[in-house]
Amino acid sequence: MALVVQKYGGTSVADPERIRAVADHVARCRRRGDQVTMVVSAMGKETDELLLLADRVSSVRPGREMDMLITAGERKAIALMCMALADLGVPAHSFTGSQAGFITDTNHRNAKILEITPGRVLESLEAGNVPVVAGSQGVSTDRDVTFLGRGGSDTTAVALSKALRADMCELYTDVSGVFSADPQLVPAAQKMPSITFDELLEMTATGCPKPAMRSVEVAHNHDVPLHIRSAFTWEPGTYVVGEELAMEQPIIRAITHDLSESKITVVDVPDKPGVSGTLFRALADAGVNVDMIVQNVSEHGMTDISFTVPTDSLEEARSILESGIASQLGAKRVTSDDSIGRVSVIGAGMKSNPGVAATMFETLAANDINIEMISTSAIRISCVIEADAAEAAVQYLHTAFGLDAG
Amino acid sequence: MALVVQKYGGTSVADPERIRAVADHVARCRRRGDQVTMVVSAMGKETDELLLLADRVSSVRPGREMDMLITAGERKAIALMCMALADLGVPAHSFTGSQAGFITDTNHRNAKILEITPGRVLESLEAGNVPVVAGSQGVSTDRDVTFLGRGGSDTTAVALSKALRADMCELYTDVSGVFSADPQLVPAAQKMPSITFDELLEMTATGCPKPAMRSVEVAHNHDVPLHIRSAFTWEPGTYVVGEELAMEQPIIRAITHDLSESKITVVDVPDKPGVSGTLFRALADAGVNVDMIVQNVSEHGMTDISFTVPTDSLEEARSILESGIASQLGAKRVTSDDSIGRVSVIGAGMKSNPGVAATMFETLAANDINIEMISTSAIRISCVIEADAAEAAVQYLHTAFGLDAG
Repeated sequence: MALVVQKYGGTSVADPERIRAVADHVARCRRRGDQVTMVVSAMGKETDELLLLADRVSSVRPGREMDMLITAGERKAIALMCMALADLGVPAHSFTGSQAGFITDTNHRNAKILEITPGRVLESLEAGNVPVVAGSQGVSTDRDVTFLGRGGSDTTAVALSKALRADMCELYTDVSGVFSADPQLVPAAQKMPSITFDELLEMTATGCPKPAMRSVEVAHNHDVPLHIRSAFTWEPGTYVVGEELAMEQPIIRAITHDLSESKITVVDVPDKPGVSGTLFRALADAGVNVDMIVQNVSEHGMTDISFTVPTDSLEEARSILESGIASQLGAKRVTSDDSIGRVSVIGAGMKSNPGVAATMFETLAANDINIEMISTSAIRISCVIEADAAEAAVQYLHTAFGLDAG
Repeated sequence: MALVVQKYGGTSVADPERIRAVADHVARCRRRGDQVTMVVSAMGKETDELLLLADRVSSVRPGREMDMLITAGERKAIALMCMALADLGVPAHSFTGSQAGFITDTNHRNAKILEITPGRVLESLEAGNVPVVAGSQGVSTDRDVTFLGRGGSDTTAVALSKALRADMCELYTDVSGVFSADPQLVPAAQKMPSITFDELLEMTATGCPKPAMRSVEVAHNHDVPLHIRSAFTWEPGTYVVGEELAMEQPIIRAITHDLSESKITVVDVPDKPGVSGTLFRALADAGVNVDMIVQNVSEHGMTDISFTVPTDSLEEARSILESGIASQLGAKRVTSDDSIGRVSVIGAGMKSNPGVAATMFETLAANDINIEMISTSAIRISCVIEADAAEAAVQYLHTAFGLDAG
C-alpha cells in the first residue's frame, strides 16, 4: 500500500464536473489499494477573479488582507472536493493550511513555509479518510492567514509529501507531462517519460510553465519523488528522478522559451570593484527579480552591464536606476528593450559533451537570428534574441538537437 | 467616545461600490469620535451560490465540509472591507470567527456560541484599528470551522457587543428600521422609533424577517442595546429598548404575517397523559421545528391536535407521523394543509388592555376571513387563516388597530 500525495491545479477542479471527475479518480486509486492525501488549488480562474474584486474595492491592498481574501478560493475547493468524495462513499476531511499545520513566515502574498506539523492530517489518514488540504496557504508565526504565492499549491504538495513521508507526489495538471518543447509551438515535441531534477529546474527557470520552479527546488532538496501528469487523460506522465538514473539519457532533453522578460543595459560604467554590488543590491531591495546578467569585456576602464527582469518590473527597475543609482555609478545612460525572447537548450548530458553551445549558435546564425546575450550553466545554455524570432528558434533548435518525434 | 459594533448584512456589501459606501460611513463615524468594530456577512447572494455549487458537486453534504465552504464567503467580504477602509486611510484588521475568538459547539451548519475570547479584536481596537469580524462563524471545540446558520451575523454582532462591552450594537440592513407591518403590503405602515425586546421577539417569531430572532434573544438576555437601521439611507432606524421605557407606547405596535408554515392535524387521538409528549418528542428528535400547537376540547375521550411546521419540513413531519407514531398513539388519521397563513397582532400594551383579541377576531370576521387556529402570548395574538387571505388580513388589522400613518 503506497501513500500518494495528489495535487490538483485550478483547471483540474475548474467546475463541478471536473471536481467529480477528480473525486472519481481518487476513489479508483483507493480501490487499487493506495492511501491518498490531496492538495487542491482554487477553482479555475477564481484567484484572478478575487484579485479583480480587490482592484474594484481599493487601490490599497494590505498583504494581510489580500491573503485572507485569496485563500478563500482554496477553502471552497477543498470543501466541495470532500463532498464529491463523500458522494462516492469515500470519507474525506478538508484542512485549511493552518489546520494542516503549515507554519509560515509573515511575508504576506509570498510566504515561506517554516515548519509543517501535520498531526491532524495524519490522524485523518490513519482513520481511513482522504485528507484534502488547501493549497498555497498557511498560518504565520503572528497567527495570520498567509498565501504562499501563485503556483504555491505545488509547493504545498511537495512539502506535505516530505512531512508525511509519502511514496510519491503526483502533480496533476492540464498537460500530460513535461515536453521537449512547448507542444503548441513544436508539433514534434515529445513527452519525456522521466527527467532529472536539475534539468527540470533549468526548464522551469527558463520558461517551462509547470510545475512551479519553487516546488521542484523543494522536491530536489528533500528527495521527494515527483510524477507530473494529466488530470484530464489520466495517462502516465513524466517522473522526476535523481541524477544517477539519468546517465543513459540523451545529451539534450528540451528546448524552452520565455517571452516574459525585458532587457536593461547600463552603458559605459566604470569597471571598478563594487559597481555590480551597488547596482543589484538596489534592485534587490526594491524586490525586482533580476535573471540573466552579462557584463561585457572592459574597454578603456569602462564596461556595459546587461540584465533581464520580468517585463512587469521593467518600469520599476528603470525608475530605480534613473533616480540616482546610474549616475552615482558614473554610467553614461540606461537603455532597455521589452521585445526580447530567451531560448534555452537544456540537458544534463551536455556537461560531458562539448560542442552543444557551438551547435546552438550555428543553428541560430544559419537562420539569421542574432544573439544579444548569452548565459550558461552546467546543464543549460540560454540566448536572448529578438522576441519575434523566439518561436522559430525553438523549432530550429528542436530539430537541430534531434528531439523531433518519429 | 462610544464603542459601536456595526453589523452589515449581505445586501449592504453586495458589490464593490456598496463595500466602499460602507467603508465611507465607518470613516465618518470615526471622524465623529466613535470607536468602531465591524461584523460583515458574505456579499449579496454568495451564500446561495455556494449552496448551489455544493448541489452540483454532490448529493452528500457533510456538515463539516458545508461549513468550510460557506464560511469562505464571509472571509472574502472582511478582507475586501479592510482594503476599502485602508483606501480611505482607516487602518483595519480582518478576523475570521476563529481569530476573533468565537468558540462554538460542534453542531455544524447551526453551531451555538459557547464562549468568546476576543483578545485579538481588543488588541486591534486598542491599537486604533477597525477590527472587521466575519459574521456567523467560529471554531468548534473539535477545532473545526463552524457556521452559525443563516442570519447568524446578527448573532455574531450581538454576542461580540456583549464581549467587548460595546455601547451600542447597530444592525445595518436594507430596510430603514422595524415597521408596524410589511411596508410592501401596507403602504401606511410606519417605522417605529423604538420597540421593546419582547415585542421585537414576538415580531421576529411571527414573520418579521429582520433582525434574526436568535440575535434578539441574545441581545435581550445580555442587555445589549440594539439599533436596527439602513445601510442605504443611513437615517436613524429603530432602537430596541428595555421594558420600562416602553410604558408610554400605544397598545398595539405591529401586525406581522408568515406564509412559510403548514398545518398538520392528528385527528381523534385518545385524550390521555403522554400523548403530546410522545408526539412532539418524535418530531423534535428528527429536528422538525414545531411552532403553534393547539389541542381541541376533548369529546368522548378523543381530541384533535393541530400544529404548524415550516413547509420545508412538512414531508418529513408527515412521514414520521405516518411511519408509526400516529397509529401507536391510536390516532384515526393525519391531515395537513400547506396553504395557510398566520397573522399576528403584537404589542406589550395589550397585557393591560382587554379587548384586543375581540377586536382582532371581529375584524377578520367582518371581512369573511375564517380563523382556523388561534394562539396567544402575553403580548401577541396569532390567527392561522387561509394563505390567500393573509395579505388582506394584515391591511384590515393595521387599519383596525389605528396603525395607519397620517
